[in-house]
Amino acid sequence: MKALIDKIKTAGIAVDEHVLKVDSFINHQVDPKLMGEIGEEFARYFKDKKITKVFTVETSGIAPAVFTALVMNLDLVVLKKNTSKILSGEVYQTSIYSFTKGVNYELTLSKKFIDKDDNILIIDDFLANGQAALGAVNLVEMAGAKVGGIGILIEKTFQDGRKLLDDRGYETYSLARIKSLKEGMIEFED
Amino acid sequence: MKALIDKIKTAGIAVDEHVLKVDSFINHQVDPKLMGEIGEEFARYFKDKKITKVFTVETSGIAPAVFTALVMNLDLVVLKKNTSKILSGEVYQTSIYSFTKGVNYELTLSKKFIDKDDNILIIDDFLANGQAALGAVNLVEMAGAKVGGIGILIEKTFQDGRKLLDDRGYETYSLARIKSLKEGMIEFED
Repeated sequence: MKALIDKIKTAGIAVDEHVLKVDSFINHQVDPKLMGEIGEEFARYFKDKKITKVFTVETSGIAPAVFTALVMNLDLVVLKKNTSKILSGEVYQTSIYSFTKGVNYELTLSKKFIDKDDNILIIDDFLANGQAALGAVNLVEMAGAKVGGIGILIEKTFQDGRKLLDDRGYETYSLARIKSLKEGMIEFED
Repeated sequence: MKALIDKIKTAGIAVDEHVLKVDSFINHQVDPKLMGEIGEEFARYFKDKKITKVFTVETSGIAPAVFTALVMNLDLVVLKKNTSKILSGEVYQTSIYSFTKGVNYELTLSKKFIDKDDNILIIDDFLANGQAALGAVNLVEMAGAKVGGIGILIEKTFQDGRKLLDDRGYETYSLARIKSLKEGMIEFED
């Protein structure tokens, strides 16, 4: 998606060969106009997939996901990152490891917000090692529902997240695909 | 705001006399259409205040705040809740206590996303004891900038948040004002 790629080129910072800093328009400061355009693009791409609900993982996926859900006229569910297990039968939970923060989360979904007939579109800001997206996939599968697609703002193709999602049989659509962050340079896939 | 009050009446749950559960349309599942209408309403109310930027506190304020910022054609900044102090001169931080979770956070703002000429609109989902909003106010004041107003989705008027913000001299506009949650009943201010 040209608007996002252009923004990454002008405002993204390759901190080291693994970390792309986008805190001036996605993670800390947020560009609402760009988020709106991203929502339009995901809605366009997934329009024939019979999606029934949009899911995202807190926190940075919320802004693009809420616009996607608005354009698709669907509800959004924000999966929670709990630091400990909730001891009740009313939630689905799955452990995910955050490489960025070096901690485990219990990704949490109330059972009342999914049902086996749902076909879920998962939206997230980054796809790197795929832990957050796979966690969301696990929760959908626990409920006996389907994943209708996965929409990612920025994919780091040199990490293995894409392969893990492909292996599970799901379609992933990334708006910007980054091949390398070496030597402070942001190199995109063609 | 009628749309929000109606939604609270039909989908809000008074869990006990202090806790209003709105997880089916604000906190966990999110109603994007309602969030869009809330954004329009805040933009309308604060349109003459010469706001330069919208701030919110992660996580549940993001959806209404991103629509507010979009309608006002401004950037949004999402204040981060860090669990420990960041030891660098590049951020403003202030401690806030979460009564809901019983923990302290370091509310964090990168210095590069505020400047002394800014006039900030703070948006948050709940105003109860006012700790999150006051934390946001503190960060703005640390930067030497101004608070142009505070927009709240749901105010619990039986807690002291409103008074604390009034005492600091700031205008707070709440879309739904709740007087009591006693005996499982949600009672609104007139």
